[in-house]
Amino acid sequence: MIKAGIVGGTGYTGVELLRLLAQHPEVVISAITSRKEAGMAVSEMFPNLRGRVDIPFSDPQSAPLKECDVVFFATPNGIAMQQARELLDAGVRVIDLAADFRIKDVAVWEKWYGMQHACPDLIAEAVYGLPEINREKIKGARLIANPGCYPTAVQLGFLPLIEAGLIDADNLVADCKSGVSGAGRKAEVSTLFAETADSFKAYGVSGHRHLPEIAQGLSGVRGAPVELTFVPHLTPIIRGIHATLYARLKTEADLQSLYEKRYQDDYFVDVLPAGTHPETRSVRGSNVCRIAVHRPQGGNTVVVLSVIDNLVKGAAGQAVQNMNILFDLSESTGLQQIPLLP
Amino acid sequence: MIKAGIVGGTGYTGVELLRLLAQHPEVVISAITSRKEAGMAVSEMFPNLRGRVDIPFSDPQSAPLKECDVVFFATPNGIAMQQARELLDAGVRVIDLAADFRIKDVAVWEKWYGMQHACPDLIAEAVYGLPEINREKIKGARLIANPGCYPTAVQLGFLPLIEAGLIDADNLVADCKSGVSGAGRKAEVSTLFAETADSFKAYGVSGHRHLPEIAQGLSGVRGAPVELTFVPHLTPIIRGIHATLYARLKTEADLQSLYEKRYQDDYFVDVLPAGTHPETRSVRGSNVCRIAVHRPQGGNTVVVLSVIDNLVKGAAGQAVQNMNILFDLSESTGLQQIPLLP
Amino acid sequence: MIKAGIVGGTGYTGVELLRLLAQHPEVVISAITSRKEAGMAVSEMFPNLRGRVDIPFSDPQSAPLKECDVVFFATPNGIAMQQARELLDAGVRVIDLAADFRIKDVAVWEKWYGMQHACPDLIAEAVYGLPEINREKIKGARLIANPGCYPTAVQLGFLPLIEAGLIDADNLVADCKSGVSGAGRKAEVSTLFAETADSFKAYGVSGHRHLPEIAQGLSGVRGAPVELTFVPHLTPIIRGIHATLYARLKTEADLQSLYEKRYQDDYFVDVLPAGTHPETRSVRGSNVCRIAVHRPQGGNTVVVLSVIDNLVKGAAGQAVQNMNILFDLSESTGLQQIPLLP
Amino acid sequence: MIKAGIVGGTGYTGVELLRLLAQHPEVVISAITSRKEAGMAVSEMFPNLRGRVDIPFSDPQSAPLKECDVVFFATPNGIAMQQARELLDAGVRVIDLAADFRIKDVAVWEKWYGMQHACPDLIAEAVYGLPEINREKIKGARLIANPGCYPTAVQLGFLPLIEAGLIDADNLVADCKSGVSGAGRKAEVSTLFAETADSFKAYGVSGHRHLPEIAQGLSGVRGAPVELTFVPHLTPIIRGIHATLYARLKTEADLQSLYEKRYQDDYFVDVLPAGTHPETRSVRGSNVCRIAVHRPQGGNTVVVLSVIDNLVKGAAGQAVQNMNILFDLSESTGLQQIPLLP
Repeated sequence: MIKAGIVGGTGYTGVELLRLLAQHPEVVISAITSRKEAGMAVSEMFPNLRGRVDIPFSDPQSAPLKECDVVFFATPNGIAMQQARELLDAGVRVIDLAADFRIKDVAVWEKWYGMQHACPDLIAEAVYGLPEINREKIKGARLIANPGCYPTAVQLGFLPLIEAGLIDADNLVADCKSGVSGAGRKAEVSTLFAETADSFKAYGVSGHRHLPEIAQGLSGVRGAPVELTFVPHLTPIIRGIHATLYARLKTEADLQSLYEKRYQDDYFVDVLPAGTHPETRSVRGSNVCRIAVHRPQGGNTVVVLSVIDNLVKGAAGQAVQNMNILFDLSESTGLQQIPLLP
Repeated sequence: MIKAGIVGGTGYTGVELLRLLAQHPEVVISAITSRKEAGMAVSEMFPNLRGRVDIPFSDPQSAPLKECDVVFFATPNGIAMQQARELLDAGVRVIDLAADFRIKDVAVWEKWYGMQHACPDLIAEAVYGLPEINREKIKGARLIANPGCYPTAVQLGFLPLIEAGLIDADNLVADCKSGVSGAGRKAEVSTLFAETADSFKAYGVSGHRHLPEIAQGLSGVRGAPVELTFVPHLTPIIRGIHATLYARLKTEADLQSLYEKRYQDDYFVDVLPAGTHPETRSVRGSNVCRIAVHRPQGGNTVVVLSVIDNLVKGAAGQAVQNMNILFDLSESTGLQQIPLLP
Repeated sequence: MIKAGIVGGTGYTGVELLRLLAQHPEVVISAITSRKEAGMAVSEMFPNLRGRVDIPFSDPQSAPLKECDVVFFATPNGIAMQQARELLDAGVRVIDLAADFRIKDVAVWEKWYGMQHACPDLIAEAVYGLPEINREKIKGARLIANPGCYPTAVQLGFLPLIEAGLIDADNLVADCKSGVSGAGRKAEVSTLFAETADSFKAYGVSGHRHLPEIAQGLSGVRGAPVELTFVPHLTPIIRGIHATLYARLKTEADLQSLYEKRYQDDYFVDVLPAGTHPETRSVRGSNVCRIAVHRPQGGNTVVVLSVIDNLVKGAAGQAVQNMNILFDLSESTGLQQIPLLP
Repeated sequence: MIKAGIVGGTGYTGVELLRLLAQHPEVVISAITSRKEAGMAVSEMFPNLRGRVDIPFSDPQSAPLKECDVVFFATPNGIAMQQARELLDAGVRVIDLAADFRIKDVAVWEKWYGMQHACPDLIAEAVYGLPEINREKIKGARLIANPGCYPTAVQLGFLPLIEAGLIDADNLVADCKSGVSGAGRKAEVSTLFAETADSFKAYGVSGHRHLPEIAQGLSGVRGAPVELTFVPHLTPIIRGIHATLYARLKTEADLQSLYEKRYQDDYFVDVLPAGTHPETRSVRGSNVCRIAVHRPQGGNTVVVLSVIDNLVKGAAGQAVQNMNILFDLSESTGLQQIPLLP
């Protein structure tokens, strides 16, 4: 059994990791930490876990994290970079669900995240944990930078087009919509029910931290910089991201077949039949990304629709998928939940 | 492996049965019927099942239902009573998720359901499938009447008090709130999003079909008729029932301890700590009923809060629980999904 | 024109007062204060007011409140009692939308609100601003205690029955459901969208501050103490309260006619036809309370359904109604908005 | 007073027309028709209108429509074209809220709407009722084609850029999100609460009827065809459209100033400060369109955010605005409702 620890378990990615790991046949949860809630039973905060996860939150200092095989950081940005080295030195694999190791260019990271990076050398070592691109690199990694939610949906959507060199990668548009859980479990006026229900809005149009992450990933695939306009929106759903992607075709191609072939060996990417529209609820609670590709009126604009559950494939599920790869398990172990519909 | 058939698979209880049975380790789904959609892949209608349930709907006439070990009716009221006998005669166990066999008094049934019953003798044989009351009778049954959603939440909530004879059973109040999926997947104006979102209302105050079902169950427990005022409400959530129950105490008792003892051997009933309030989302997607018992200001009024997922413990999950009992499996087999929160 | 001031304008009752007063033909808004946001244009925080309310928040110290004819306190509990006397002494009428002056028994108030009262003598003077009971007293008042949201819906629902002495007032049940705006515009985890959407729960079953307020009001009508079980619930709607009230009839009566007569001269109470069910959306954005009275199965239990918009008849609208009475205007002046449906 | 009639009053545009006209100081509602509900009080179907609109639905045959000054068609597509001529001949002004007269090219209309047009000559006469473009033409019109909801939000958003010739109009993208009321008050599975709540999806990517309407409008402004990719989405809100528009700048310009000048005389278009993001709730229940213009990272892509209430500026409110112009009233008469927030 894999001994797993979670640092920072009181947010939505924390409870979601617990939900998934508690049902994982090869994992035992050794510790979950919270400075603030140390001593409180996890199931008191998250009653869905009653009878299933019976350990309490423990203090980060005293938790037996170094005895774990793998430690997940479900913390705010800037925490994992402080603590990762000590765990790595103790032989623990580290999977960071925050952004500390996602951006290779330290200066870019420091600009977007507004702090100095604590261990730039580890950035170089870290592997970006998008298995559909980096599966082989993940296998041998010690430190995984688990991708952001928007970057997962957008990169999986654009990937086949860019790999095939079919589109004008200097003029990409990603119009993305996220459920409110993406903002985390923080006390803030802007994500109150009465502020966000029955309303829809864009935010961060002038710049969002996921932009450099997406650009880095797609540029890596292209082998040259891409230019992307990324507009996130808030939609009144709890979980789910819907990315609507626009690009101009440079070359004719059978797009449906392109996507089906690209993802035929990726268990968690489901290419839908031509002409269909994925709903976010069709992946609710599961690690699947569903994608449909369109070419309206047969013109030169490709429209790709890509949906994920931001807390699963966009966070905790992808982290477990990465753990499965790290420990040489079948990629879908413990991740076979069928989406909840309706 | 148990060969299972589903009659009428295009509603919410149908898709929920599929979700649960597809993950059940001892079941193979042999057939799912729909007159109207025969030939269509199930996963075309319910894309959450893509890659997991790959059979098409089949015509009720040609489906191999008699070769099944068990057949679930996820049909409107009045269908199972037409078809159950033929299946029973062929040795198939039948679990009806509709109301055809729930009410023992045929005249009462015919009054509330507005049709003549097709097989009153089978009513007598049918076992009311609330395992927390009828577990032993279910074991040997051929025909199970799976309880309604409100009746499940209300009966489990009142049960310990009535068994113990602690309350005035001539003056019970059940103020119940249901998610909109309880109304089914039918094209109706009254359950449109724009009619039900951001609004709350009572309905059926003058009389609801679940009233005689609840009254029958509680009267059976009491050994005498009970008097109940039952007011259902519609709340803008997809899944979930919250029953708020009121009764007057006749005798002093340690209510918390009473509830904990009553349900200590019932895997799917979770008695919460004193002073707490269950949320419907704490059981979302799971077969658990969570109950809290209160006595405000130490007075003589008991307030019981009881929550279930109407599509799981209130329908498909309870049906699978009944199947597990019928086939001598552990009651929780295939029903260990952790609720989705948030 | 009436010069109106608002103290504490950054919450939901504040913006709602602005919406109503900005459309009121006899009012000019002289000042709206916020310590924290002084200087910010009101319409920057509340863009629905762009082009309609163009003043900024001003500092409470420097705002010309004493030159107003009326000042509304849309502040947290405990503020109005600090500042009311000075305004009253300056000849300003004061309407407190918080709870400082609602409870006549100072000890009871101090117990439920957990602080010492700053001016018990003003409690005695204050008039409880439920016009349907206290219209005459309101006319000459200097200081109005505007009722709470639950208390408005519950008292209007029970009033005709208690005035007529028809029910057992020692055993009342008020099962109430509130939209999330009732919790205010405060940064709290418990009212985040991802915590409250698609879920339903009770809260405060052991005791809620509106219980003594309701009990005081109904006891005053009865002329003797009433006993009430009050259970509030949170339903995922933005605005709206639905009170479902239960009582036992002692005497036969034509309830429909009783209610229609009782409220025939109350512009803002609408008694619905027999057999109907009011929806909260039928009063969304308006100052109306809609009530339906039922007697299920012709038994002895009366069920009253009472709905209001918690921010209008439950707060800002009722405050404006009280202002209209104070200044001898027609009660409905500026309060004729038609509810928004859908 | 203007005598107004409404044909087809049982849908959402019908009830919204009633809400607005009942509050309009210069209008008396003479008739509202519904074949199916003739005789039923309007307020029985729409209880928000109780006490405010007390007429019943009348049969279309017997209603005194020819005696009206103006008749609104709030009917499905294909009805107004059957009945308009008779009313026009009787001297009645006609405002069609459906699509019968929106598309000038009859062949295009017949292709997208799947029926033969009944009166192509009236198409030529009809004026497209977007006052911000066609105010002068509307003044003298007999027959107004009230714009669609998406077309209103998209055209107002692109208008200044196209008029100024600043963008590449051969590569426009309109990513639009609509509330569910946009689908109308029809009994359909796809718009049930349990199908649309807590989920987000695109639809009609291969082609939507509003595409030719938008293209016609923008091409008219450009004086040459535009090329537009239009992707509509369904978001779980009741009312509201959010259009996110993308275009490539060809020429430098001060976009903020461009928008502010273009709309300085349009009462119902509110250009927000630079850097802001309009929410749909900021226009809920009102006739305002709020627009913000962005240029992310100072690049060549312009992003315009445009929000309206689909039932007001996108339907009934714009129809009343057109009526005000037709009858030489101030454009905002009866349309000054402040949006409901929260």
